[in-house]
Amino acid sequence: MSFDLVIRGGTVATAADRFSADIGITGGRIAALGHDLAGADEIDATGKLVLPGGIEAHCHIAQESASGGMTADDYRTGSISAAFGGNASFVPFAAQHRGMGVTETLDLYDSRAQGASVIDYGYHLIIADATDAVLREELPAAFARGVTSFKVFMTYDRMKIDDRQFLEILSVARAHGALTMVHAENSGLIGWMTDRLMAGGHSAPRYHAISHPAAAEAEAIHRAVTFARFLDAPLMIVHVSTPEGADIIARARLEGARVFAETCPQYLFLTRDDLDRPGMEGAKFMCSPPPRDAESAAHIWRHLAVGTFSLFSSDHAPYRFDTSGKLAGGPEAPFNTIANGMPGLAVRLPLLFSEGVRTGRISLEQFVALSSANAARIYGMAPAKGSITVGADADIAIWDPQETRTVRLEDQHDAMDYTPYEGMELTGWPVTVLSRGDRVIDGGRLVAEPGRGRYIARARPDLGAAAPRPPAELDPARAFGADLLGRDG
Amino acid sequence: MSFDLVIRGGTVATAADRFSADIGITGGRIAALGHDLAGADEIDATGKLVLPGGIEAHCHIAQESASGGMTADDYRTGSISAAFGGNASFVPFAAQHRGMGVTETLDLYDSRAQGASVIDYGYHLIIADATDAVLREELPAAFARGVTSFKVFMTYDRMKIDDRQFLEILSVARAHGALTMVHAENSGLIGWMTDRLMAGGHSAPRYHAISHPAAAEAEAIHRAVTFARFLDAPLMIVHVSTPEGADIIARARLEGARVFAETCPQYLFLTRDDLDRPGMEGAKFMCSPPPRDAESAAHIWRHLAVGTFSLFSSDHAPYRFDTSGKLAGGPEAPFNTIANGMPGLAVRLPLLFSEGVRTGRISLEQFVALSSANAARIYGMAPAKGSITVGADADIAIWDPQETRTVRLEDQHDAMDYTPYEGMELTGWPVTVLSRGDRVIDGGRLVAEPGRGRYIARARPDLGAAAPRPPAELDPARAFGADLLGRDG
Amino acid sequence: MSFDLVIRGGTVATAADRFSADIGITGGRIAALGHDLAGADEIDATGKLVLPGGIEAHCHIAQESASGGMTADDYRTGSISAAFGGNASFVPFAAQHRGMGVTETLDLYDSRAQGASVIDYGYHLIIADATDAVLREELPAAFARGVTSFKVFMTYDRMKIDDRQFLEILSVARAHGALTMVHAENSGLIGWMTDRLMAGGHSAPRYHAISHPAAAEAEAIHRAVTFARFLDAPLMIVHVSTPEGADIIARARLEGARVFAETCPQYLFLTRDDLDRPGMEGAKFMCSPPPRDAESAAHIWRHLAVGTFSLFSSDHAPYRFDTSGKLAGGPEAPFNTIANGMPGLAVRLPLLFSEGVRTGRISLEQFVALSSANAARIYGMAPAKGSITVGADADIAIWDPQETRTVRLEDQHDAMDYTPYEGMELTGWPVTVLSRGDRVIDGGRLVAEPGRGRYIARARPDLGAAAPRPPAELDPARAFGADLLGRDG
Amino acid sequence: MSFDLVIRGGTVATAADRFSADIGITGGRIAALGHDLAGADEIDATGKLVLPGGIEAHCHIAQESASGGMTADDYRTGSISAAFGGNASFVPFAAQHRGMGVTETLDLYDSRAQGASVIDYGYHLIIADATDAVLREELPAAFARGVTSFKVFMTYDRMKIDDRQFLEILSVARAHGALTMVHAENSGLIGWMTDRLMAGGHSAPRYHAISHPAAAEAEAIHRAVTFARFLDAPLMIVHVSTPEGADIIARARLEGARVFAETCPQYLFLTRDDLDRPGMEGAKFMCSPPPRDAESAAHIWRHLAVGTFSLFSSDHAPYRFDTSGKLAGGPEAPFNTIANGMPGLAVRLPLLFSEGVRTGRISLEQFVALSSANAARIYGMAPAKGSITVGADADIAIWDPQETRTVRLEDQHDAMDYTPYEGMELTGWPVTVLSRGDRVIDGGRLVAEPGRGRYIARARPDLGAAAPRPPAELDPARAFGADLLGRDG
Repeated sequence: MSFDLVIRGGTVATAADRFSADIGITGGRIAALGHDLAGADEIDATGKLVLPGGIEAHCHIAQESASGGMTADDYRTGSISAAFGGNASFVPFAAQHRGMGVTETLDLYDSRAQGASVIDYGYHLIIADATDAVLREELPAAFARGVTSFKVFMTYDRMKIDDRQFLEILSVARAHGALTMVHAENSGLIGWMTDRLMAGGHSAPRYHAISHPAAAEAEAIHRAVTFARFLDAPLMIVHVSTPEGADIIARARLEGARVFAETCPQYLFLTRDDLDRPGMEGAKFMCSPPPRDAESAAHIWRHLAVGTFSLFSSDHAPYRFDTSGKLAGGPEAPFNTIANGMPGLAVRLPLLFSEGVRTGRISLEQFVALSSANAARIYGMAPAKGSITVGADADIAIWDPQETRTVRLEDQHDAMDYTPYEGMELTGWPVTVLSRGDRVIDGGRLVAEPGRGRYIARARPDLGAAAPRPPAELDPARAFGADLLGRDG
Repeated sequence: MSFDLVIRGGTVATAADRFSADIGITGGRIAALGHDLAGADEIDATGKLVLPGGIEAHCHIAQESASGGMTADDYRTGSISAAFGGNASFVPFAAQHRGMGVTETLDLYDSRAQGASVIDYGYHLIIADATDAVLREELPAAFARGVTSFKVFMTYDRMKIDDRQFLEILSVARAHGALTMVHAENSGLIGWMTDRLMAGGHSAPRYHAISHPAAAEAEAIHRAVTFARFLDAPLMIVHVSTPEGADIIARARLEGARVFAETCPQYLFLTRDDLDRPGMEGAKFMCSPPPRDAESAAHIWRHLAVGTFSLFSSDHAPYRFDTSGKLAGGPEAPFNTIANGMPGLAVRLPLLFSEGVRTGRISLEQFVALSSANAARIYGMAPAKGSITVGADADIAIWDPQETRTVRLEDQHDAMDYTPYEGMELTGWPVTVLSRGDRVIDGGRLVAEPGRGRYIARARPDLGAAAPRPPAELDPARAFGADLLGRDG
Repeated sequence: MSFDLVIRGGTVATAADRFSADIGITGGRIAALGHDLAGADEIDATGKLVLPGGIEAHCHIAQESASGGMTADDYRTGSISAAFGGNASFVPFAAQHRGMGVTETLDLYDSRAQGASVIDYGYHLIIADATDAVLREELPAAFARGVTSFKVFMTYDRMKIDDRQFLEILSVARAHGALTMVHAENSGLIGWMTDRLMAGGHSAPRYHAISHPAAAEAEAIHRAVTFARFLDAPLMIVHVSTPEGADIIARARLEGARVFAETCPQYLFLTRDDLDRPGMEGAKFMCSPPPRDAESAAHIWRHLAVGTFSLFSSDHAPYRFDTSGKLAGGPEAPFNTIANGMPGLAVRLPLLFSEGVRTGRISLEQFVALSSANAARIYGMAPAKGSITVGADADIAIWDPQETRTVRLEDQHDAMDYTPYEGMELTGWPVTVLSRGDRVIDGGRLVAEPGRGRYIARARPDLGAAAPRPPAELDPARAFGADLLGRDG
Repeated sequence: MSFDLVIRGGTVATAADRFSADIGITGGRIAALGHDLAGADEIDATGKLVLPGGIEAHCHIAQESASGGMTADDYRTGSISAAFGGNASFVPFAAQHRGMGVTETLDLYDSRAQGASVIDYGYHLIIADATDAVLREELPAAFARGVTSFKVFMTYDRMKIDDRQFLEILSVARAHGALTMVHAENSGLIGWMTDRLMAGGHSAPRYHAISHPAAAEAEAIHRAVTFARFLDAPLMIVHVSTPEGADIIARARLEGARVFAETCPQYLFLTRDDLDRPGMEGAKFMCSPPPRDAESAAHIWRHLAVGTFSLFSSDHAPYRFDTSGKLAGGPEAPFNTIANGMPGLAVRLPLLFSEGVRTGRISLEQFVALSSANAARIYGMAPAKGSITVGADADIAIWDPQETRTVRLEDQHDAMDYTPYEGMELTGWPVTVLSRGDRVIDGGRLVAEPGRGRYIARARPDLGAAAPRPPAELDPARAFGADLLGRDG
């Protein structure tokens, strides 16, 4: 039997195993694992790691920001940068804004993505306007269309939902098997701090970190977790930055809550001191929630190692350090008018590999889980994505674990004019990336055409064992006969 | 030396001590403690307990409810009922409503209280409209006038403040040394549940308990505690009903938070099953938060014993079981239109004595602390109130620890037509109550005139040891130089 | 390419993945995964689950008990029973007794195992006599021989070590990369309770449960975890039975401790009430720690679901219900003279599958992890054992997930005269078991010869990410210059 | 009415109250509190604090140490030093050694104390040899004699009891209403560390701190608390030094355990760095458990403020810095042969006042509770000792809250040749100390005769509210009918 392509001689790793095998690929899928496989085409992976292609599960592409600007990256540049970073698929956001319908929103993003991406893609739907029509008709339609994860914001004036809306969305999502994602920061606390800082004349970028204290995240995470547990609705807390927040999540998980969490490179590799760089330089490191301190980062690393976090994502939110982005408000713009976010598509996985796997903080199998397998499961893309198994899409990243490179802007291949990790020396880099058996990156070069990436109609999230339970307080036996989840539970 | 009045031969107890002594009273104050004191008048307290007069620190008197109705009790009936219950002073609420000024509010309540009360009284100020004028001018004026505790609501549409307002009030209160009190339940969760229950046709009184789940209280308590810790502002969580909430408070206190808590008889002696009594009978047991279950009550008892709670108050909120009160909406009124609250002024302390002290759950000294001494300290009335010491007001309750009575409506002496504790047999009752040396209750009869009670201009709350600290996140050293509490901390 | 054997058409599952594939086996190993593979021999697995062969990691075979008797099962009957239960390898104990050397012990067990087992086997070494020679010479020799896990007892007079010895063994094990296992119950508390019960005439089997209270386990687990964390030595807590114990472990793991845990069927499926069956019947359910109650079992299930436990083992300790075993002390023997333990080799995995996977409490992937993959990793048998990957031993169990059987003694195929699970109806059973490509069980019959099983020389345990760290208190920087782990850490 | 003595014009404080009053004393007791009292003798306390005389509840006087030497202080010098420190009574230990009877021990200490002490005294009984005769006959006899608290050691080869003995003593103490006290450190861990340090040549005093790690205390506290909760026996954990230990205690108390705790000045004011002073100087700061670090001290302060600790004692254990004490083993003696302990009788309360009350960490009322009132209650000396109430012994310390002094050896008035607090500047000092109405210290001089102090036959400890409960695991209803505490509970 001959295959279209054989990857020969590498060490294959999945979220559970590590073994030597050749991989036979036919028709874009993994057809066989074995030894001495023969193919029409071959890649020699001797001495290399052969891993499931990364899945970037949190990035902002061709999207209007909370403050109104457009991201620098579109689906072409974003997908290229992701691919250079070892990713074979990604799931940006389709952002509803108030007054827009959901179908309209998804159609808009389809138009932005089609013909542009070099890798496969899906969308998480941001819900900013939870009208009755949205809740009753459009969310089910979105789910049917393969958009099976919905994101809400507890802060940002243009996006935020209130507690009652949050409960309603969790309830609707639970009924359909969708996963709700949440940006958890307390809006009132951030607003109060911002007012106080501005009134005191504290408008420099460094005060952004002060205006978003740890307490704002911890409070919102506790509230979100309380709601999710109350409804037994699954919930993903994105971009967790604080030990306090991670501790709340970890305890809830131990107690059986269907709560999942994500963290990002900025909370491991940057600190609030980066926002205190001279002049406006600190604006490059502004994101929400902001980087904390070194002690917090150590604590987040530990939660990453022990399994509190299922995902490690870039939260790539690209606003250039010029008048099109960060400096739109001028060279002295107060912090509360500067676009939040930073890039990270191409460097997320090398950072995690070099500082996580090589140092022994996490195992190679955990790296696969955090970079790809968990996202595939949780966001309904398995078994096609996220592993190296027979029948799966041949989305594969071949890594050279010994290669050392210095992070440089020119190697990010995105539309940005800076990278916050400039100059870091990292060991372990992806050298070849395949998407459905096609070489996308090879020999340090892009070898695929924009538009070859396909839309991934995602299935119901696979959230592991937890069979849905009637939460105690909604249990009809306790609730004086009222079956409060009966209509949709 | 002869005294106006001597209480002879009793066992005196304070929050710390228990001893045999005569008490000499002159000019309304305690002039001496000793043996064989002689007075123009004498009370024989042999075999009795001589305790500081109770302080009822949470009751609604001559106040419009959240749903608009007026309480059945005014300052005359309310103070009489309190006195029969062993209290020598009380602190009802002066409730600002939207559109009212604070001074206007306090003047209004002065007019309601003056000439009516048989015991001394003060007010906690409810803030429902936190305008700039209120925050900057009227709260300081209220503080100067002796109103040194402010209450806010996190729920009830007509009263609730949002998170930013809550932070501002905490901050202003901290600046002046005032204590903020909070009704902590999550408004959105209650609203969502209520809608769902009503939509399902579940409108009977029993669904009130379902509509206010434990999660709603636990969430709001966590949020309130987070805000208080963030600002290092002291906070009193009133009427805590859930183990989850009490646990959050206990942990925060252990970690040094200046957070205090109160619970009430309904959370120890009633359960949600009481709301499930036939017909509308359950409406009598509706209050917010609602009674929980027996296991929760046991947990609240334990927190009472170990010191999580500083106060045990009645939350007397008297709405008659007729069209003037509970049944204003008719005999089939849905639960969400029925006034919340129940009476308890006259029975709070006998309940605690009989089921707390006699069973060994709490000590006699704890009883004094919970019934009187802590409220005096925390609400700025010490050393005049709350203890039996030289120089203190002669506010004294003489208890017969052996007397057994059955709770009856006619013994409540309030304006109500029911008591939720009807028929309970309790041992240990107050037999004589003095206010500033005057007999108010004696031999089971009222012996004082309405109007003899005086307004208590309260001082800055004495919250114990905790020296105010700059909270870590607001510490200028960490906050890039911004002194966030500097203007008022 | 043709294989010796092909398993065709099944659904393959590993600890991370689930997919349809044929498995090609040659030379006892998995040579390929793919579609349409051809083999000299074939097994049709259509509609079946094809799983890594179970690894029974905790069982007592051909071993003297703590009270002196010999187990009913030897390596022949034990291995056969295990194979019928879906296991393709097992790791019984080699038990040092006082006065014996370690090499002598291992030689003895070699002589007991060789020529007898139908599946592959290794040993955990029980250390009961931690002499200097044992610590300095014999443990390293055992490690070199492939015995890389050492077990100690905190209770049982004939086996127990004291705290200082425990620390020394942890330290030596850490130095060599071995894993220490511990039976954690407080010896003094059990002894005190036993004396008190016997003095009170309470000698029936049911009092065994009373004599081993939850507090005894919780205390010992806390102590063991404290020691392991102090030394940063990895530790496996076996047969955890209590919520309190599991909670201690879960918290320690969250805080980064290298602590692992195991539970067993008796803590999920039996309760102390089983020890209260009429007459001596309760003796059949005596084991240490004993079964607890239904609430505890629910809590242990939750910890199993959330990952606190890495292993689910039988703790098969076979003593017949006759004078050779449980009743050696006569028909009225007091509980403290009755051999502890019960059988479970053949039913462990069907119990977990039927009540875990089918109910949704755990996922199929978790089942693979708990039944096989984790043990392979943790006990140094990966990648040969524990997964279905290219290059691994063809240790495979084919399960029919729809088959329903009633548990019967005659289907256990062990040397016992009872099973504690008699009469339970379970769905999901292994139908074919392969060991290194050889059919061992097929069509409900044993088709392999005793003696075909081989000794597994185990490698250093793979305990995941955690890079060894200098624990804070032993860190030379803090320890005034003393490098306390330097010699061996 | 005229009194023997009147203390005029001071501010009186108890554990609950603070007020201005004169105190009338007759016959050694407080006869009256009032204004304008007249006496045969008077003390002007204007501008002073009039507090209950301190009770030193943990000190070693005329006692053989664990390593065999005799303390430098006897009842004469010890009581004088205590009185200079503001104490009006103290409770040293009567230490049974192996082979001694309890009555014999108490007789021995009577002979040491009689005729020597200037203040009243009692003994805690140290049990080192828990024979049947001791448990069944001698402990009840000791209790009847007024020795109502028993201390055990979990470490020190010459004193330590094992777990079974500990349980038995707790059980016997519970039966009689006595309070068990425990020195909680893990003996095996300390021994293992000591061996390892000595083997590495690390014998300097500083290694004492390393040999007694925080883990040793935390483990032992957890074990002791587990035992106490298991039996519902009250327990006092003495000299707690670690945050970990204090956290365990605080949690257990919140959960209703009858567990009490004490800390000491060395854990607030010294650190392990003090043991690292040049030469043998560090030996002066050796005690067990050892001082920790500044962060630990801050944590212990917080637990003191929030009420985890009921007692603040000196643990005065006086061994001179010469060949009679610390240097008995020579000028190069290894740490494990040096007597443990340090003096503190005269400086305990000034340290707590200056650094606790004046800084706002604790209130004046808490100071009274920690220095006197709690010990009086807990150790069965109330109401005679521990407060300023009618009928109490006139044990009174008059403090000048403004006086600033530097700590000097010559002001300790003990038999020591150093004080670890030499040179500290403290504000707030006792100026006059009365015992039963007699001036003991006045104007900076001793004005009482040795021998005037009397033995205090202590009553059953008053441990507050907690009615004894049948612990769940010993409850006959759960324990299959065995009433495990029935004989004595």
